[in-house]
Amino acid sequence: MTAQTVKKVPLLRGKTIVNLFFEASTRTRTTFELAAKRLSADVLNINVTQSSAVKGETLLDTLRNLEAMHIDMFVVRHADSGAAHFIANNAAPHISVINAGDGRHSHPTQAMLDMFTIRRVKGPDFGRLRVAIVGDILHSRVARSQIHALNLLHTGEVRIVAPKTLIPVDAKSLGAHVFHDLHAGIRDVDVVIMLRLQRERMQGALLPSEYYELFGLTEEKLALASPDVTVMHPGPINRGVEMDSEVADGPRSVILEQVTHGIAVRMAVMSMAMRTTAGAQETEQRKEPLPGKGEAAE
Amino acid sequence: MTAQTVKKVPLLRGKTIVNLFFEASTRTRTTFELAAKRLSADVLNINVTQSSAVKGETLLDTLRNLEAMHIDMFVVRHADSGAAHFIANNAAPHISVINAGDGRHSHPTQAMLDMFTIRRVKGPDFGRLRVAIVGDILHSRVARSQIHALNLLHTGEVRIVAPKTLIPVDAKSLGAHVFHDLHAGIRDVDVVIMLRLQRERMQGALLPSEYYELFGLTEEKLALASPDVTVMHPGPINRGVEMDSEVADGPRSVILEQVTHGIAVRMAVMSMAMRTTAGAQETEQRKEPLPGKGEAAE
Amino acid sequence: MTAQTVKKVPLLRGKTIVNLFFEASTRTRTTFELAAKRLSADVLNINVTQSSAVKGETLLDTLRNLEAMHIDMFVVRHADSGAAHFIANNAAPHISVINAGDGRHSHPTQAMLDMFTIRRVKGPDFGRLRVAIVGDILHSRVARSQIHALNLLHTGEVRIVAPKTLIPVDAKSLGAHVFHDLHAGIRDVDVVIMLRLQRERMQGALLPSEYYELFGLTEEKLALASPDVTVMHPGPINRGVEMDSEVADGPRSVILEQVTHGIAVRMAVMSMAMRTTAGAQETEQRKEPLPGKGEAAE
Repeated sequence: MTAQTVKKVPLLRGKTIVNLFFEASTRTRTTFELAAKRLSADVLNINVTQSSAVKGETLLDTLRNLEAMHIDMFVVRHADSGAAHFIANNAAPHISVINAGDGRHSHPTQAMLDMFTIRRVKGPDFGRLRVAIVGDILHSRVARSQIHALNLLHTGEVRIVAPKTLIPVDAKSLGAHVFHDLHAGIRDVDVVIMLRLQRERMQGALLPSEYYELFGLTEEKLALASPDVTVMHPGPINRGVEMDSEVADGPRSVILEQVTHGIAVRMAVMSMAMRTTAGAQETEQRKEPLPGKGEAAE
Repeated sequence: MTAQTVKKVPLLRGKTIVNLFFEASTRTRTTFELAAKRLSADVLNINVTQSSAVKGETLLDTLRNLEAMHIDMFVVRHADSGAAHFIANNAAPHISVINAGDGRHSHPTQAMLDMFTIRRVKGPDFGRLRVAIVGDILHSRVARSQIHALNLLHTGEVRIVAPKTLIPVDAKSLGAHVFHDLHAGIRDVDVVIMLRLQRERMQGALLPSEYYELFGLTEEKLALASPDVTVMHPGPINRGVEMDSEVADGPRSVILEQVTHGIAVRMAVMSMAMRTTAGAQETEQRKEPLPGKGEAAE
Repeated sequence: MTAQTVKKVPLLRGKTIVNLFFEASTRTRTTFELAAKRLSADVLNINVTQSSAVKGETLLDTLRNLEAMHIDMFVVRHADSGAAHFIANNAAPHISVINAGDGRHSHPTQAMLDMFTIRRVKGPDFGRLRVAIVGDILHSRVARSQIHALNLLHTGEVRIVAPKTLIPVDAKSLGAHVFHDLHAGIRDVDVVIMLRLQRERMQGALLPSEYYELFGLTEEKLALASPDVTVMHPGPINRGVEMDSEVADGPRSVILEQVTHGIAVRMAVMSMAMRTTAGAQETEQRKEPLPGKGEAAE
């Protein structure tokens, strides 16, 4: 029981963090808000409704206004790929921007907490691991960030397992082996990451029951994997669709550990990002007397 | 003027309290949020919309996820009777669960603040008191908790006063005398508690004007009660339906004192519940070396 | 870059401030919430939906209830002129009430931050300044408060510039010169304040494109003003309607400075109002033994 050892730390006391959510997500917003409060920061939640059609120019004005209020950090969630990057490119250099999910593009803190979880269970050597990511790869920013992170960490083998309609056309260039059959895809893997089936994105594709039949994780299918296989899921689970409850709640599942690590990793990202931008700025200021330096401080 | 003496206390500093509201209630949420902030806790408000049909299993997953984020306490409001109890039974032992109203079942902190208010006005001897609860007993979790608390405190006489259609069939087993006439029901009582008329639950029953005619509290009817009768209401009042403004704002009304006590009682409940679960856990841990002990720590 | 010098101050530690918004405004709510948090106060956001038809009596009950919870300050936004004043007249004397915009009547903190901004740019002598306010004067509480403030500060000349349909009938009594032509209206002015076009209030009036043609601020029209003219706007800007981006982002624009000053001015107003009511109360208490004093402490 580690709950009692959680302490609030004063690392970001006096800092103001804005959760700038252009796409509603109570769950993700909650984890960032909690992480920020445990770092003693002040948090403002701003939900920019999709309906008030946010155009490039208006987004910049929103940004400039919040900057003028001396915000220190934006946590950005947006339905468009590249939104956080666009904001980071246009924000003042002393402001930190954290991507909390942008379109189909990426969800870096989710991938970081997943890597942290794998490392805690399997140890630091990713080179000896086979990892399978199963589900709707096509629409999943989580999958893209996971594949990127697993390759950065020189994972032995990265597999993606999905029906043909849910695999991106550039799948091979992602740096992963493609499987269309779950039995083959999870054979001998050390880690299996099940993605959430986003029902609203499945028009014309498989029904949940068909999906479960082909790609749902059961104890029986899991027996094909390595004996000490670890089961992960970014949550929330559709029980009986992506996996059986027996698997979700079983001894190989680290799904709740992922949630716990999610807070810790976001606290780490927030405090490191804040120090990095402060450091970059200091460096930049010290550099100013020196001529001819062209590096971006970002 | 006691407002200046209110101080923030550090009793729950570093603790995280989640207002887990499955049923919207700005008023109740506000009182708990305020109580938590005055105890220096961090508060997260999570409104689980009724529309996203929360099934038993999904509720458990929501709970497990919040537990994994190292939440210390849940304040639960739910339209289903037993929801808070279900959550308490399924939460980890170090987590405190406070019922902020469940279906028609109970609303314990409301009853506690009402008892506290009666005690402040009438003194500690409930045995000499006649208390009448007037209104829609059938649908009222507040009434159920009040009757329970009044009986626990050995109140001299507990009366419920309502039209036949708004009295539960098991009324007598509740431990209260049933009256269908307000004049008889409030004769000689020391305390009269008026319930809020929930208009949305009155389909096919009395119109507000009919209700007022029969069960609305006026100065004239109040003259039948004890000369020093105290008038209470859990709020918000429908003026001109449950009671005249003359009564609501008159010298016998302690309705605003109830609100003030509501914050104090919720602060007390929160800090005592937090210490109780911490204590239970410590006790449990110390007990572990001893064999054969079967008590639940809960 | 002054962001690093922003510090949280403990001036209102232990105080509870309620943002009581009867009219939705994320932007204004955010500035007050941020100001309150930087003063270390606890903040509760209460959005009273317009739909739950707030009648005079109910508003008073809402007020009494929040008072009973020992709130120290209300920040009130309401669609009806006079709402904040009504609340201030009816609140207990130790409670501070800040008007965050009431109907068409006034928006005092906006006018204060605008005056502060003008003073920072132009210096303390308002007597030598010509200031033009351009746009929908008729519906604008901002304009009314600005005109009032500019006259209080003995501004050399105050002009309002708008189409005839957007000028109030009592325009002259406001203490401003009326212009219906932008070219004439901004000639030789030192400060031009562009108002936001509230599209929802323009039924039957000008189209945005027509408005821009006649009253939109361009570099060309701005050349008619004083060479060191300052351009202001309360935000958010409709680019291409009230002004060109060239003007909004140009060297004469202090629009983002207004936002920064908005936090500082609201912090000042909040801490001074809290001290004023505390002081008034102290004074009042000391006065009590003295007979015959009739001043209102307000």
